[in-house]
Amino acid sequence: MAFEYLSNVELEEAVGGFLSALKERGAKPRTEFVPVGESLGRVTAEPLYAAISAPHYHACAMDGIALAASATFGATATTPVTLAPEDYVVVDTGDPLPQGCDAVVMVEDLVYAEGDGVENLGSCPVTLFASIAPWGNVRQIGEDICAGEMLLTSNVRIQPAAMGAMLAAGVQEVPVIARPRVGIIPTGDEVVAPSANPKPGDVMEFNSTIFSGMVRQWGGEPVVYPIVADKPDLVRDAVAKSVAECDITLLNAGSSAGRDDYSSRAVGEVGQVLYHGIAIKPGKPAILGCAGPKAIVGVPGYPVSGIIVVEQIVKPIIEQLLGNNVPQAATVRATLARPCMSSLKYQEFVRVRLGKVGEKLVATPLSRGAGVVTSFVKADGLMTVPQNVEGYEAGEEVDVSLLRPLEDIENSLVVIGSHDPLIDEIAQFIHARDAALSVASTHVGSMGAIVAAKRGENHCGGIHLLDEATGAYNEPYLQKHFPKGGVRQVECVYRQQGLMVAPGNPLGIRSLADLAVEGRSFVNRQKGSGTRILSDYICKQEGIDPSKIYGYDHEEFTHTAVAALVEAGSADAGMGIYSAAKMYGLDFVPICEEQYDLLVPDYAWGTPMVQALLSVLESDEFRARMQELGGYRVDQPGSVRRHYE
Amino acid sequence: MAFEYLSNVELEEAVGGFLSALKERGAKPRTEFVPVGESLGRVTAEPLYAAISAPHYHACAMDGIALAASATFGATATTPVTLAPEDYVVVDTGDPLPQGCDAVVMVEDLVYAEGDGVENLGSCPVTLFASIAPWGNVRQIGEDICAGEMLLTSNVRIQPAAMGAMLAAGVQEVPVIARPRVGIIPTGDEVVAPSANPKPGDVMEFNSTIFSGMVRQWGGEPVVYPIVADKPDLVRDAVAKSVAECDITLLNAGSSAGRDDYSSRAVGEVGQVLYHGIAIKPGKPAILGCAGPKAIVGVPGYPVSGIIVVEQIVKPIIEQLLGNNVPQAATVRATLARPCMSSLKYQEFVRVRLGKVGEKLVATPLSRGAGVVTSFVKADGLMTVPQNVEGYEAGEEVDVSLLRPLEDIENSLVVIGSHDPLIDEIAQFIHARDAALSVASTHVGSMGAIVAAKRGENHCGGIHLLDEATGAYNEPYLQKHFPKGGVRQVECVYRQQGLMVAPGNPLGIRSLADLAVEGRSFVNRQKGSGTRILSDYICKQEGIDPSKIYGYDHEEFTHTAVAALVEAGSADAGMGIYSAAKMYGLDFVPICEEQYDLLVPDYAWGTPMVQALLSVLESDEFRARMQELGGYRVDQPGSVRRHYE
Repeated sequence: MAFEYLSNVELEEAVGGFLSALKERGAKPRTEFVPVGESLGRVTAEPLYAAISAPHYHACAMDGIALAASATFGATATTPVTLAPEDYVVVDTGDPLPQGCDAVVMVEDLVYAEGDGVENLGSCPVTLFASIAPWGNVRQIGEDICAGEMLLTSNVRIQPAAMGAMLAAGVQEVPVIARPRVGIIPTGDEVVAPSANPKPGDVMEFNSTIFSGMVRQWGGEPVVYPIVADKPDLVRDAVAKSVAECDITLLNAGSSAGRDDYSSRAVGEVGQVLYHGIAIKPGKPAILGCAGPKAIVGVPGYPVSGIIVVEQIVKPIIEQLLGNNVPQAATVRATLARPCMSSLKYQEFVRVRLGKVGEKLVATPLSRGAGVVTSFVKADGLMTVPQNVEGYEAGEEVDVSLLRPLEDIENSLVVIGSHDPLIDEIAQFIHARDAALSVASTHVGSMGAIVAAKRGENHCGGIHLLDEATGAYNEPYLQKHFPKGGVRQVECVYRQQGLMVAPGNPLGIRSLADLAVEGRSFVNRQKGSGTRILSDYICKQEGIDPSKIYGYDHEEFTHTAVAALVEAGSADAGMGIYSAAKMYGLDFVPICEEQYDLLVPDYAWGTPMVQALLSVLESDEFRARMQELGGYRVDQPGSVRRHYE
Repeated sequence: MAFEYLSNVELEEAVGGFLSALKERGAKPRTEFVPVGESLGRVTAEPLYAAISAPHYHACAMDGIALAASATFGATATTPVTLAPEDYVVVDTGDPLPQGCDAVVMVEDLVYAEGDGVENLGSCPVTLFASIAPWGNVRQIGEDICAGEMLLTSNVRIQPAAMGAMLAAGVQEVPVIARPRVGIIPTGDEVVAPSANPKPGDVMEFNSTIFSGMVRQWGGEPVVYPIVADKPDLVRDAVAKSVAECDITLLNAGSSAGRDDYSSRAVGEVGQVLYHGIAIKPGKPAILGCAGPKAIVGVPGYPVSGIIVVEQIVKPIIEQLLGNNVPQAATVRATLARPCMSSLKYQEFVRVRLGKVGEKLVATPLSRGAGVVTSFVKADGLMTVPQNVEGYEAGEEVDVSLLRPLEDIENSLVVIGSHDPLIDEIAQFIHARDAALSVASTHVGSMGAIVAAKRGENHCGGIHLLDEATGAYNEPYLQKHFPKGGVRQVECVYRQQGLMVAPGNPLGIRSLADLAVEGRSFVNRQKGSGTRILSDYICKQEGIDPSKIYGYDHEEFTHTAVAALVEAGSADAGMGIYSAAKMYGLDFVPICEEQYDLLVPDYAWGTPMVQALLSVLESDEFRARMQELGGYRVDQPGSVRRHYE
């Protein structure tokens, strides 16, 4: 098992070398002609000159009469000039200026003799009380565009007004830079087209959909080929076909060194491998190759690795083929909310969630799992940790390349705290009421809400912290952690906590004690979550040794994740809320009703996002939706239980 | 001729009332389902929940062996554990976790007995020197997405990663907000399809192309109907058809009160006119009407008026039908370079050119002619002068809504000065060499270059100012106007100035004196331009009374505009450069060779834009292009003639 790809070339070096190699072999922007009407958003390949002037004739700019301006010279309020019908021509806006005329007087400025009027204009004399200058009210030839003038330079993105200017200037077809064709070849015996009911082991092929979207956004034209089985000949033939038809070929999956790795061989057979193994994470096993001027890129199979490779390696090729006309993401400085460690061996790309809290732009690193495509859905930005840097500490300022407009981020309610599906429902209500506002939620447990509020990093967070001594929720914790005040405890809901078990509860589980039995398994929540505190409390109360419960260390971050594992049979029970059990059709053994509040720091109280949150909490639609989800009791959501001052 | 539309309703009031009326009548976003693969950039109509978990099965995350984690408990470097072939299953990345297994050990961590190896893995024992935790190297069900979780709220623009997440979550079709269909009806007897050879009086119909592009950029779907002649029945039928087929109907042209005005009547017959006449400039004659929930907008025929009406009145309707998900233009503060007066009667929209000079963002108002579509091509932003404001003074700070990204504007070489087509050629060379850089040029004559440099508003400007006393070019003027220095005089070209006359010079014109003759006409350049100074100088030298030359007051701003008018026969001669005469196939009577320099203020010298300009001037390609254009002599372009310190 030779790891030929462990060359670990630096990204910048590899991309630079790759682009030069392609250019040397003749890769360059291609020109094509498109009708002006289809040129929106395309990039001009050459400077564009006006073929004719606009207007292309002297055009009357008003409804009225055309005449020789000299005939009006001297006309004033006291010395009016009267013109006979043969001295003028009735014209409408846009009419060509009649022979012998060099000005137009607008119809509103004409005075008629008794008995005459606009209805017999053309056959009656008219009187003028002011002179008109030569070329008055005439749109002269070339007023807008002169034939021969440059309308657009090359390398310009065509906007609607430019399309109008081209047509006005007699240009019917535009030379534009051809969209680079990007062939995408999914490979793998286990890979199947996406379906609503996949079988275990089916790996659904959605990378080509993601990559196509990215390519389209950058101005390329994706061509998705059928899925190819792991047969060297088939893979090679597919690559050869794509190379013949496209500018760039993406060979997806098979670029790690597993058993089914034919990618490198296929690239070598059709063309030549230039680099194999790049010092980036994720995305390390990428292959950079070419056949003449055509690029061939081996893209790793995991979506997150694949996205990074396409973004970092394929985008620059598209840029080169488009004459460097790809819009670039803006970059901002943000404060890191949590430490982010990274290997010295790789340049690492970390997706982050961004939130504007007070004056501070806060970046929270998201899951770095290579399979976690939702981390890209949730991400607001991409942070790069250079190869020679070990990572960043919490509180450090970092550069983040934006994946969403900064304005959206600034109008986002930053929810950091305990997980409950109702947070997503609140997000839906807030955004549906005002599209300018949105919600960015991170599930780090109730204690996480307190920590974030102390550090000024959230606008609110769910908390349901049971005080063992008093049996009260939240208040003792807030008193302890905010001795100087500065937060509000806002009522949200009461919710049922309990054990989620398989439908019909086949093992007859009634309590945590029933799980401290050989052969049974549990799935737990992470430390610091209110639900974990509840499990720990129950163990203590009932005298159960947690180490006797198999899976007590198996930590998940959300109620739904726990429910999904119980439904899959990976665990016999998990602690969680009723609504999650209901969502998965599980049986539910109630343990207690708990108080789920929202912690809102004073610095966030006046923001439009928090005010929108409160008005959602107070709404009838929120109440109705909680009823629908089940397991919630709603009293006076949105009211302030206590302001800690 | 009743001006029923002189109601002059305020824009905000009219749009507010219009949107409410449409909403009351049932206008709202429509939902349609599209396949995920076609959903890029669309906006979700409903919150979207995961149908299945992702992964949808416990997936092996490594190539290696699957086993029960408990079988490895206790394994360390000193107490290894050896597994028999029946205790493990060989797996590849992505394989379903076999029954009875809850962890995967990667192939690299396996140790074989003498004679065994990876090639007989599956039939040989393997030894482990470390234990593995339950669920190690397993991508558990729901690790990325849990069934039932909300993937996206409604009102969210779909990005590539979200498309992947939807497919992974078993979602095949997405409910998205339907693109509002916008029917565009061009009308007018004189209106023809764009062509390369229009006849005088043909008004080319390019508004529908511009409006289609705008509608598309905002997320609507344009439907362009055939041109309708000015017949009331035909116009009414066309409106009725569009109303039946589309959400919004734009009836283009005919909304002023001229003879051919059937728009208002047609709107009233198909539906009802709500407003007619809005207090905006341009765009005043707009009609706002509806038929049930369908909007009908009468859009003025002049492109600039039409663009403003579509932008100010139609865009909000599209926004309403898209659930307010149309990207909004960013706004910046800029310093006005010239005064901009406006009527108290109207809210006025003025296109401006923006330039970043030093730390200052400078806005220069562009031509406000209603027919000048190029003013939209050149515009970097749109400035609004409110209805109750008389205008702004030069130097005032104004709000400008951006039409181009601010970054592009900041990388733009601001050329303000004398016109020469070579400025466009330089723009082409600069932008072709570095797509990040561009050129924004304004033609205000040589004296305009000096004024702009004094006020810190340009990076460079063309000057060719003849000093009557010495016969020298530029230097005496720069000495006078920059007594404290601060500018460089950079050599550009020498060019032929002369009289442009009809081909064959039928009137035998040899000098300006030949134009001071009854029946002959001239076209001049604007005061402050070097060419005008030349004309004035010659008149003085030859003792010609300019008032005897018909058209001496007829001022144009560019050499090409003068050439276009001479070619059209509007004037018998005009003063200008050889290259413009050549472009139009005119005869040329040489008068002198003049020195065309570039003035570069010191504050601009170090900018990348000016450095790029200098390297273009010094290039062989610039020299070759000047040769090609004709009438230029090139010595040492790019060299500094004198630095005024």
